Amino acid sequence: MDPMIIMQPELAAEESLEKIFNFISEKKYFKARDELLKYNEADIAEMFEEMLEDRDILESTIVIYRLLPKDVSVEVFSYLPSDDQLKIVEGITEAELSYIVQELDFDDKIDILEELPATLVDMILEKTPKDERHLINTFLNYPDNCAGSLMTPNYISLEMGMTVGEALAHIKDVGMDAETLYTCYVKDSGRKLIGIISLSTLVISEDWIKIQDVMHTDYVWVNVYDDREEVSEVFKKYDFIAMPVVDKEHRLVGIITIDDILDVIEDENTEDIERMAGIIDLEDSDKEYLDKTVFQHVKARLPWLLMMMVALMLTGAIISGFEEVLSKVIVLVAYMPLLMGMGGNTGSQASTLIVRGLALNEVELEDTLRVLWKEFRISFCVGAVLSVFNFAKIIWLDGESPLIAATVCLSLILIVTFAKCLGGMVPMLAKKLNVDPALMANPVIASLTDMVSVLIYFVMAKLILGL
Amino acid sequence: MDPMIIMQPELAAEESLEKIFNFISEKKYFKARDELLKYNEADIAEMFEEMLEDRDILESTIVIYRLLPKDVSVEVFSYLPSDDQLKIVEGITEAELSYIVQELDFDDKIDILEELPATLVDMILEKTPKDERHLINTFLNYPDNCAGSLMTPNYISLEMGMTVGEALAHIKDVGMDAETLYTCYVKDSGRKLIGIISLSTLVISEDWIKIQDVMHTDYVWVNVYDDREEVSEVFKKYDFIAMPVVDKEHRLVGIITIDDILDVIEDENTEDIERMAGIIDLEDSDKEYLDKTVFQHVKARLPWLLMMMVALMLTGAIISGFEEVLSKVIVLVAYMPLLMGMGGNTGSQASTLIVRGLALNEVELEDTLRVLWKEFRISFCVGAVLSVFNFAKIIWLDGESPLIAATVCLSLILIVTFAKCLGGMVPMLAKKLNVDPALMANPVIASLTDMVSVLIYFVMAKLILGL
Repeated sequence: MDPMIIMQPELAAEESLEKIFNFISEKKYFKARDELLKYNEADIAEMFEEMLEDRDILESTIVIYRLLPKDVSVEVFSYLPSDDQLKIVEGITEAELSYIVQELDFDDKIDILEELPATLVDMILEKTPKDERHLINTFLNYPDNCAGSLMTPNYISLEMGMTVGEALAHIKDVGMDAETLYTCYVKDSGRKLIGIISLSTLVISEDWIKIQDVMHTDYVWVNVYDDREEVSEVFKKYDFIAMPVVDKEHRLVGIITIDDILDVIEDENTEDIERMAGIIDLEDSDKEYLDKTVFQHVKARLPWLLMMMVALMLTGAIISGFEEVLSKVIVLVAYMPLLMGMGGNTGSQASTLIVRGLALNEVELEDTLRVLWKEFRISFCVGAVLSVFNFAKIIWLDGESPLIAATVCLSLILIVTFAKCLGGMVPMLAKKLNVDPALMANPVIASLTDMVSVLIYFVMAKLILGL
Repeated sequence: MDPMIIMQPELAAEESLEKIFNFISEKKYFKARDELLKYNEADIAEMFEEMLEDRDILESTIVIYRLLPKDVSVEVFSYLPSDDQLKIVEGITEAELSYIVQELDFDDKIDILEELPATLVDMILEKTPKDERHLINTFLNYPDNCAGSLMTPNYISLEMGMTVGEALAHIKDVGMDAETLYTCYVKDSGRKLIGIISLSTLVISEDWIKIQDVMHTDYVWVNVYDDREEVSEVFKKYDFIAMPVVDKEHRLVGIITIDDILDVIEDENTEDIERMAGIIDLEDSDKEYLDKTVFQHVKARLPWLLMMMVALMLTGAIISGFEEVLSKVIVLVAYMPLLMGMGGNTGSQASTLIVRGLALNEVELEDTLRVLWKEFRISFCVGAVLSVFNFAKIIWLDGESPLIAATVCLSLILIVTFAKCLGGMVPMLAKKLNVDPALMANPVIASLTDMVSVLIYFVMAKLILGL
């Protein structure tokens, strides 16, 4: 074989997908299958995702899926997102489903069992050996957001007294699935974890060395009920590729591998980003944008909008209170969007940086005063620059009086300073109160800056213009 | 040893850090060192980060660092962020620096050499063997954002004709650093990559089997000049823990391991989040919040604010154009914040979801019409709910006429619909034009919705109120 002819799978897959859609329209299912089989299972899964999006060819897609070799069909299934898995489950026989589930890696098996209707789960569990059935039931009971929901019970256990040679022979005997073999775990007779040793250390050590002499005892572990986000923090900090999970008696109950952590990190980031934009999606947060119904989208977006609406109504009420001032100098209205907009924008810049800094542990609670001092100086510089431009524009372009310009520009500096300091402090306060900063910071800051902006503006107008 | 007494390192470290600060104030440096040495290198590094933050004890901190055992000091160095590394570099001797750099893993070595002043780099390179010096120079030349900057040249190469037993013996001979040993790479005589085989497959295969019979030839690879973000996409898609990097002749030049990808993912997410909030940080984006100077913060935040300022000035100009209308019905001003605020909020909800969807490949360009249709329906529902509340509030609470209420509410529905559809479309357009959606979407949407909001409002007012 010539490696020069290997094409980047991404590009080739686009072309093949077109061919496959043509084969489907000609009902040449075997040809479609053969085209798919040119690819790695992850690529095939991606192509099935595209095919499953098109409801008109759903039946054909399922036919092609059923034509895949059994081992490929299991792998492809494991790469599919859960809603696509369910589409396939509905189209295949119970026997086929049962086969797929039995063959899946343990953690993938738990994931799909959590999604399936109870009757199907019972059907599958009936066909499962007793030991594994017990294990599956234990795993199904771990809450969704904890380390237990991420782990797999497939790991290699060694004993302290083994030699390296015996350990390697043991591994060859067990013939474990490659994915979970990076690290081996040493347990005592009471199933308590006492050390870890990487496969590579085993391979490069002499055969006669005792495990207890090469294993690491200062390993890091997580508890089975630790939060997923904390677990991902530990992975990031230590650059591990697998980590042991223990119960409260320090018994090893499973391991978590880094590939499952990538998804956690992306999920947590998506959640933070959405929350910062006021999208609060408790139930359907792992669904993709296009897979959510209009109703689900509305449900996720409306609560925050209603809150903001009330805040904006209050801002409106403040303005009403100054109607007299406004009616005397109607031109003041023209600068309201500028002042409110700048307050909102500068505030959200500060809060975004602090929310992110808190999430990555770059900023901590004891830094509160440092943040405040930094934001104060930043806002002064930013406010000054913006004001200079505005002053010039109001005088020369708009032809307004210097007093009007002074009103707007002094207000601008005060508003920017207030917004940036508030933007820096509210996430800290939320963290202090154990509320998610990403969730609370932006609505609080946006509402407060809006109200305070108009208040500052009109008070300045009254003072400077003597209204 | 009793595993029950193991404390979660996070908690214990807080206590120890207090002790260490006390030891420092009493100048008991050896005791401080011994306290540190109770921990894993990653934890020690984290404690040094805290100590290095306090400039008053910088000299003491460096003294303690120099008291660490040499192997520990190298590991700790590799875990530190680059600005803390530089603080240490300034405090240690050239000989110590040279030792640390020589002992670092190749990828960490490249990272620190990129940061050091040229004279120090030359000094270190002089002491480096010629072969490695050449390699270092090659690696230093890869652009910062490409696969080449993430890779390490430390991997195990095998030959096709080897048996599994010979391969394992070869690995034991080379005794490679554990971190890069998950996968072995099979090259032909021209250094071209022809297959990969995982260490675990080697370990569980019989000794007499030929490598060419167990290796994978349908592996996935990246090019040395591929973008870091694309590389992280490939990792996420295939759940790999290491990936080969090839040049344009398909020669293997290095490998990338997943622990370096975690950082890339966090960096890319931070960049996206910051860009969505209008923070554009091209030069100092890998610095932490507190480490950036006020000037650097101002530089990152001001350009977007100036752009937004111009847009808000235009909005102001539109309002000025309707001053006559306003002066007749001054109460209209009180509802302006509501309408502009709702436009901005609903627009950014939509754009955030689409920007994120595009980043995670959940939404693609060919989905444009589906997105538009979905946002249209969502905005209609959202707009209707918000309008009902507002109508009731304006009539009963504010005691305004139904015509005023109708003006505000009809405007609200139109504005929300416009904002959500625009919010859905602009990121798509940016993607189409090959501009970063995270960078372009929010300013464009915010400016346009502001202007269109007031325009819609005043046109509706003219029509409905007959002004």
